[in-house]
Order: sequence, then C-alpha cells, then structure tokens
Amino acid sequence: MIFVGFGFLMVFLQRYGFSSVGFTFLLAAFALQWSTLVQGFFHSFHGGHIHVGVESMINADFCAGAVLISFGAILGKTGPAQLLLMALLEVVLFGLNEFVLLSLLGVKDAGGSMTIHTFGAYFGLVLSRVLYRPQLEKSKHRQGSVYHSDLFAMIGTIFLWIFWPSFNSAPTTLGDGQHRTALNTYYSLTASTLSTFALSALVGRDGRLDMVHVQNAALAGGVVVGTSAEMMLTPFGALVAGFLAGTVSTLGYKFFTPILESKLKVQDTCGVHNLHGMPGVLGALLGVLVAGLATHEAYGDGLESVFPLLAKGQRSATSQAMHQLFGLFVTLIFASVGGSLGGLLLRLPFLDSPPDSQCYEDQIYWEVPGEHEDLAQGPLRAEEPETRA
Amino acid sequence: MIFVGFGFLMVFLQRYGFSSVGFTFLLAAFALQWSTLVQGFFHSFHGGHIHVGVESMINADFCAGAVLISFGAILGKTGPAQLLLMALLEVVLFGLNEFVLLSLLGVKDAGGSMTIHTFGAYFGLVLSRVLYRPQLEKSKHRQGSVYHSDLFAMIGTIFLWIFWPSFNSAPTTLGDGQHRTALNTYYSLTASTLSTFALSALVGRDGRLDMVHVQNAALAGGVVVGTSAEMMLTPFGALVAGFLAGTVSTLGYKFFTPILESKLKVQDTCGVHNLHGMPGVLGALLGVLVAGLATHEAYGDGLESVFPLLAKGQRSATSQAMHQLFGLFVTLIFASVGGSLGGLLLRLPFLDSPPDSQCYEDQIYWEVPGEHEDLAQGPLRAEEPETRA
Amino acid sequence: MIFVGFGFLMVFLQRYGFSSVGFTFLLAAFALQWSTLVQGFFHSFHGGHIHVGVESMINADFCAGAVLISFGAILGKTGPAQLLLMALLEVVLFGLNEFVLLSLLGVKDAGGSMTIHTFGAYFGLVLSRVLYRPQLEKSKHRQGSVYHSDLFAMIGTIFLWIFWPSFNSAPTTLGDGQHRTALNTYYSLTASTLSTFALSALVGRDGRLDMVHVQNAALAGGVVVGTSAEMMLTPFGALVAGFLAGTVSTLGYKFFTPILESKLKVQDTCGVHNLHGMPGVLGALLGVLVAGLATHEAYGDGLESVFPLLAKGQRSATSQAMHQLFGLFVTLIFASVGGSLGGLLLRLPFLDSPPDSQCYEDQIYWEVPGEHEDLAQGPLRAEEPETRA
Repeated sequence: MIFVGFGFLMVFLQRYGFSSVGFTFLLAAFALQWSTLVQGFFHSFHGGHIHVGVESMINADFCAGAVLISFGAILGKTGPAQLLLMALLEVVLFGLNEFVLLSLLGVKDAGGSMTIHTFGAYFGLVLSRVLYRPQLEKSKHRQGSVYHSDLFAMIGTIFLWIFWPSFNSAPTTLGDGQHRTALNTYYSLTASTLSTFALSALVGRDGRLDMVHVQNAALAGGVVVGTSAEMMLTPFGALVAGFLAGTVSTLGYKFFTPILESKLKVQDTCGVHNLHGMPGVLGALLGVLVAGLATHEAYGDGLESVFPLLAKGQRSATSQAMHQLFGLFVTLIFASVGGSLGGLLLRLPFLDSPPDSQCYEDQIYWEVPGEHEDLAQGPLRAEEPETRA
Repeated sequence: MIFVGFGFLMVFLQRYGFSSVGFTFLLAAFALQWSTLVQGFFHSFHGGHIHVGVESMINADFCAGAVLISFGAILGKTGPAQLLLMALLEVVLFGLNEFVLLSLLGVKDAGGSMTIHTFGAYFGLVLSRVLYRPQLEKSKHRQGSVYHSDLFAMIGTIFLWIFWPSFNSAPTTLGDGQHRTALNTYYSLTASTLSTFALSALVGRDGRLDMVHVQNAALAGGVVVGTSAEMMLTPFGALVAGFLAGTVSTLGYKFFTPILESKLKVQDTCGVHNLHGMPGVLGALLGVLVAGLATHEAYGDGLESVFPLLAKGQRSATSQAMHQLFGLFVTLIFASVGGSLGGLLLRLPFLDSPPDSQCYEDQIYWEVPGEHEDLAQGPLRAEEPETRA
Repeated sequence: MIFVGFGFLMVFLQRYGFSSVGFTFLLAAFALQWSTLVQGFFHSFHGGHIHVGVESMINADFCAGAVLISFGAILGKTGPAQLLLMALLEVVLFGLNEFVLLSLLGVKDAGGSMTIHTFGAYFGLVLSRVLYRPQLEKSKHRQGSVYHSDLFAMIGTIFLWIFWPSFNSAPTTLGDGQHRTALNTYYSLTASTLSTFALSALVGRDGRLDMVHVQNAALAGGVVVGTSAEMMLTPFGALVAGFLAGTVSTLGYKFFTPILESKLKVQDTCGVHNLHGMPGVLGALLGVLVAGLATHEAYGDGLESVFPLLAKGQRSATSQAMHQLFGLFVTLIFASVGGSLGGLLLRLPFLDSPPDSQCYEDQIYWEVPGEHEDLAQGPLRAEEPETRA
C-alpha cells in the first residue's frame, strides 16, 4: 500500500515520474529495513535479539509512511543520496518520538495522526524551509502536471483511499475495536471526498474542479481520524471530522500553499501541509476531545483495550486528554528540531543536490528513453511550448 | 475494488479521463453514505438506530456498484449535479428493489445478477433513452480512445477480474458456500475471457482483436454467475455459462450497440447493455434453472444456508424457481420506471448538462493542465487531425 | 496478482502495450483452466473426479506464473496462436516436473524457485533460441520504451513486490511457517531493491539509474528465496540472499543480456534470464544449503511441517540437500527438453508468427485507435523520428 499509494500520488509532475516512483521505492525499501532495526531496539529488544514478526512489519510500514510524507515536501529538489541521508535521520527520530508517545506518555494514536502524519509533514516542511531555493523559478515550467500524469496520480489516490481503513485499523485490537476503526475511517473518507468536490468547485474558476484537490484533499478524512478512529467517535463524528478535513485541506491548496511559499519561504511540492500537516494536527486535537469524553459507560468492556490506563483507574479521562495534547507538542518539537537538523545535513556540499534550473527533472538521475530532444516532441510536450515562446 | 475497477474501466475516452475517474469517485463516496442510510432503514433499523458493520459496508458497496453501472450508460453526457441527483434516486430504488427481492420474495441473488447488474444496466439505459441527444454526432470525434487511455482501462478490467470471485462470494455463508461461489465465479471468468478473445478475432477486421471487447466482455463471466455461483452450478456449468456470456457480450458490442443507438435511440457510452444488461438477465435465468433443479441430495446440509425455505419445506424447488423468475420481472420494472423518472428529473433545465458539442470533454468541469490549445498538440492529439481536416 | 503484475511489467515496449496486457490475460485464463485439469490428474484424481478448491486455484496460479515467465522471453516475436500452443505444452510439463519434484523426490519448493522461476525461464529461453531471428534488427526501433510505458511497467513491479511475500507463503503451512516465509521474502526484497539501485548507479553512464533495472532486478529478491523462505533462513540470510540476487540480476541486464543475444543467439525480450533464470538457480542452490543445515534443534516442532521426511527419520539433512540439488537438475532438463520441443512446434509454418519487420508491434493483432499514421504524430511518437531520419 505504501508503495503504490505514495509512489503514484507523487507522479503528477510531468518530467519527474521516474524519480517519484523510483525514489519512493528506494526510500521505502531502505526505511523498512532501518526502522525494523531502530524500532526493534525500542520495542522488542530482549536478550540481545530483536524479535520480528507481522507487528514489526506494520510498524516499519508506518515509519516508511512518515519518511515518504517528508519526501513529498522536498520532491524534485533533492537527489537520492540526500534522500537516503534524510531517511537515516528521520527513521531514528520517528522511533524515538513514537517511543516517547506510546510507551512513556501512554498516548493512543493507532492510525498515526501524530506519529506519522504530523511528524512526517512538519519534519519535511522545516527541512524544505532550510533548503529554501530563491531561484526555484527557473524550474517552474516543469512543476505542473500533464494529462496522463494526473491520471497516474489518481491510481495512487484511489489505492490510498481503499486501503486507508485497513491502514488505520492494522495496529488496533482484533474484533470490535478493529471494526470500529475501519468504519470510522471509511465514513470520514466518504465525507472528505464529498466536501473536497464541493469546495473545489466553489473556489475554482467558473466552478471547475481541480484535480490536485481531488487527488489529495479527498484523503484528508483518513488522516484526521488517525488518532480517534479507534475511539468512540461515532459515525456522525467521523462524518463531521471528514467534512472539516476535506474543507481545510482544499482551502489550504488554494490559498495557503502560495502564502507558505511567498511569505514563509517553505516550498511544499506536494502540498503535504494540506494533506498531512493540518489534518494531522486536527486529528490529534480531535483525539484530545474524544479521549476527554471517554466514560466507562460508552466503552463497556472495550475500555480495557482502547484506554488501558483508564480501565485500571490509573488515569482520568481528562488526564488522558492532557497527555494526548502533550503528545502533540512533543511530536511538533521532534519534527521541527529533526527537520532543522536534517536540513543542515542535506546542505553538505558534497551531496547530489540538483541545480536550481534542473529541479523536477528526471534526466539528472535516470536514463530517460528518447532523451531531451525527443521528449520535447513527444508525450511530455504539452506545456513545453509556452516556456520556450 | 469498486473505485479502481469501475473508475479506470471508464477511462478509455481520450478527453474524459478526469471526469471518468473523478465522478466515479464522487458518485461512489455519495452512494456509499446514502445507501448506508437507506439500506439501514430497510434492513437494520432497530429502536431508532441503524446498525452498521462490515455487512452494511458490503451492501453499500454493492449499491454503489449499481449506480456506477448506470453512470456507464450516460458517461460523458451528464454533469456532476445531474449524476448526484441520479444517485439520490437510484440508491433509494435499489434499496427498495433489493428489499422486495431478498426479504419479501425470498429470492437468492448473492452476486447481484439481478439486484446489481440487471437493475443498474436497465436503469441507466432507460435513463439514457430519455436523455437521447439527436445531435451527439457533434462530439463524435471525442468518443474514441487513444493508446494510453486503453491501457489505463485495462487496469480497471484486470482489477475487476481479480476481485470478482471475492465480490460474488462476499455476502454468502462462510465455509463451503463461500468457496463454491468463488470457484464458480473464477471458472466462469476464465471461460468468458477465452470466448471473448476467440469471438473478437472472429468478428474483427483481418482477425484483429478489439481492445473494447477484451476490456469488457472478458468480465461478463462474473456477471452471469452472480445469482447462481452460490448454488450447485458445478465447474462445468460455470464454464459453459462463462463461455456463453463472453460470446453474447462480444457480439453485443460488435452488432447490437450500433442498432441500440440508431433504432432504439439509446446511446450507451460504455456498452453496459453488453457487459451488465444481457449477462445480468442471462444470469438471472440461469439462477431460475439451477434453483429449479435443487434437491436435498445435491446440497446435503448446505441446503439450509443456500435455500433456507426449501430446507424448512416451506417451498418446493419449482416454487423457488418461479420466485426467482418473478424477481427478475420486478427488477426490470423497478429499473424501467426508475430510469424514466430519473431521466425526467435530469432534464430539469437548471442542471449542468453539457451542450451537444461538448460531450466527452473534461474541460467543462475540470481545470485541465495545458488547456485546450496545448492539449491539441500534446499527448491527446492522436485523433484530432482527422476531425479538423 | 499474476495478471496485474506480469501484465504491466511487460508493458514497457512502446508499441506493444495491448499485446503485452492482452496476451498475458489470454494466456493466464487459458493456463488457469488447463492446469487445473492437468494438475488435477496428478494430485487430486480420486474415483474419476478431480477435486478442486482453494489449493488447486493457488497451484493453477503458480503454473500460470511459469507460463507468463516464458512468455517474457519471446514477447513481441510470437502470435496468440503460438502462445496458446506453448501454454498447452508448458502446462503439462510444468505439472509433470512439479509432480516429480514434490511428490516423488520429496523436494521442498514453496515459492517455486525451481518449479516456477527456473523452469519458466529456461523453458522460455531455450524456446527463444529455437525461434532465433537473425533479422530482428528490422524491428529494433520498436524495442525500446517510452516515458509513460515505463511508468505503466512500474505498476507491475510494485504490485509484484507487494504481493510476493503472500505469493511465496501461500502454499506453506499456516501459522509459524507462513509468517517465517513472508518475513524472509520481505527482507530479501528490501535488500535486492537497495542493491539494484546501488549497482544500477554504479554501472550507469554518469551514475544515472536505469529504469529497466529498477523494474526487474528489484524483484530478484523474491525469486531467490522461493525455495528457502519457508526454511530457517534467518533474516540476515534473507538480506544477504536478496543483496546477491539484486546484484547478479542488475549486472545480468547490463552485461549478460547483450552477450546472450550476440553469442548464444538467445533473444530475451524481458530479460527473464536475469530476473527469473539466474536468481531461480541461485535460489535452488540456497535451498540445498539451508536444507543441508537443518537440525532438530533449529526447527523444533516445526520440522514436521517443513521437512516431514527428516522429522520421521527417513532422511538425513544431507540426503534432503542432495534431493534438492537433484530436483534442480530435473527441472533444468524438463525445461530444456520442453523448450526445444515447444520451439519446434511453434515453428510450424501455418501459425501466426509475425514477420521480422513487424515484431513488437500491436497492429498485426489489434485494432489500434488512430492507426499508424496518427499514432506517429501522437503519444507514441517519441522515438519515431530517429528511425525515419
């Protein structure tokens, strides 16, 4: 799921398809191995051995997800060696952050609104800030999509949509808890899809829809219930959350991304702030709210598996909510510090950073069939004439 | 499955890829929510609450399937507001029809030959008849496919193929019944694939194959065993059924679709009559036959789960067969009346129906990268020169 | 999985997309039916009836896999009738070879390093040798890829990658054995992905990556543990095996495929020798090694399910290793003799072999939208100008 979904979601750039899919593949394979080791040290290190199993595969998958989210923020502006270095650092910090949240603070975050989405997004955004390129205008003509690349990206969207309920419910307790998580995610996704279409038409020129919104914002519903899907969110709550997430995300693409670039000097290629950043924070806050409302009556016997500390009487619902909120702060701090550190590392001069005029371009890293001249006359020509005229 | 399969299956039109995938996504998200409510009222309304669960997700998925089948008949000739209105009506009638068949008449239809395929196809076809456009010739040049759009459509075909056995067996009883359903569907699909290739070469110019046949008719084997896969169809029966369905469907594309348009004034964009209509009716009749042949000896203890009324002695096999046949009539009536009603609704003047010269065109509803002028020189240009010359 | 993965993996040829996907579909549907019958005779023929079930579906799937691997070696140089004839023969020999190995010799080969990959690859390669076309140069200009066809091929790669752990573990014993198989496969795949990227950059011009390597060699890790994933390979062993397989496979594409064609007169369109041949043989040898090291202590109660003959004391670990090695020889002999026989059959003059100048061309077998003239100006034009100039 990680591969297909994220790989193709990023393939929308007209001349960067090989890199989007290829580097996703490379980063994911590396992050899966490295995070199995790192998380093994934190979670399942017994007597000199790391215990692996299906659970460690899921954990590693989640970590790879966070790395790929960060990749989305710097897509097209970094080389493979830079990306591997980023993954090397991010996987460690991801493991540390997750360990602090889940094991030390007793925070609940099954679908990773905090640990995956918020962490991955702000790590990438801060990193992108440090790598700010004032001359990126030179590669602007390659930053759009072409017709078929948008269709490829929709393959990614639809895959993520379909598998998101399983994704959020993978680490939850079997049985009722898992059903509830899947259903809440599913309702939230349907709601965010509808609100995305509605908002996209509302803010579009002549009421026309924008493929970028549909590709991304429709998925915000899955992000926003990452923390709370496991809890007693109720279907109505999931619908409202999804509706809000789709709205915020679509408006973010339309109005906030340009400001982010011009004012805050954050160049966010895939708009991860809109799909993962804001919905992730919203999801964490929603988790605070729903955890604060938890009662023995509402959960019954299920309380034991969702909030074990509440069930044992070691913590009140309000205290759990405060811990959740504190977890969000910790995540933001880890992401910011980590992103800054990562940015400084990636600016090391001997790395393979592309020049400003060669961003979003496959040919620096790949053998491209037909090479430059032929390509310009071929399937990727759509926007080329404009930039030459 | 619904999303990937149907979305990409319809993406074959050269200038309508965004709308095909996007509106599929929109319609599916809307139909899933709305049908959860509607079917909840019919099936699981207890004490003021609708009970949801995995079963209601599967039911809603099936209903979304029927809506998307109808969408196939009017693809390219309707706007998103029209489509949502259609879904609003169709979901209610789908729920009503299913309730009458399954709960009142005791008809068996696990894979939905009647409730999904026959209903969806004839609803869409009657609706397309009411919306008949005599001037559609003006958009004819956009109605073909281009090379890459046909490959995208094959993604849809192959997905539907792979998941069809699970699709047909999803609502059946666990264990033997589910295995039997999956195997029967699988044999039928392999047979329809082979007969489609054979027929397509036979009726093609110089024995050449037609991608439209392969994309669609190969799937007819899954439709035709929708009712009977759960029953004692036997592998041989499944192979014969699949072979027939592939044959009928391929011949339908070649000879019947043109007649349907010229004589009966039904413009069937995706050929849903060939893939869902005829195979659906065939499948319902096959269900009549197989139900009429049911005996206690053949089913053993399994009779209880497949035909509970027979097992309890409340109905004879012949009576069950008659009920199945009556179910088909009820479905056709619901579909025809519903489709007419829907057509009249969709002709309301304030809706967003595209003009005759702008059918099968993404640009009315979407921001298309590179816009019209560039596109004409770009990847979608293949058939353009002809129509201009 | 078979369909999506193999179908799209072969779609990289610029003018052969319809045939790659379409014939994969046709061959798979045919092979599934035919191998259900053939394997039914070998494995589950009781009292005049063949017993079918989920197990026979998996077996048939594996057999279809071998047929599609052979298809990869002769892709673009054979017509559909030739391919069906090949499948007719290969399915029988596959069943026979598998029966000899698994039932008579007591060889273990859960993921089919020998029965699927080695057999399929060498069957196809020998067949390709017999069908050698000295004039193939005439179609050389169509043998490359274009930008979007490479992206389509990546869909295949990523699907195969994701489903390979399930593929290898499908026929193993439920529980511990299945978990171990999936994990070993997964570690091996991550390792082969990394080594492929590293090697591809090392041997590439200016350190640039080659999409062909990423599409194929990254999967070699799944092939190489086909025999041994079920055994006590240990994660470290899986990583080493995957690393080696990715290395060998990438080097094979770069250096060995050209030699294979010029010196040995084997025209291997998809490079199946690199992805399935060499890693398959390596995997078989790895199986010999790991089987030879099997002890009661390492496997505990699991020995019964992995090596039943060892558990019963009827065979020593060394003897099991010798049987594994002998199994590889038997497979190579079956594949060579079968491939030669198949080649002679396919040279029968009344079959639909394409002329030398029309290889890798869809238009002989398919109705292609826009036909030749328009296509040349459309999305597939990228490399056309060169060949005309």
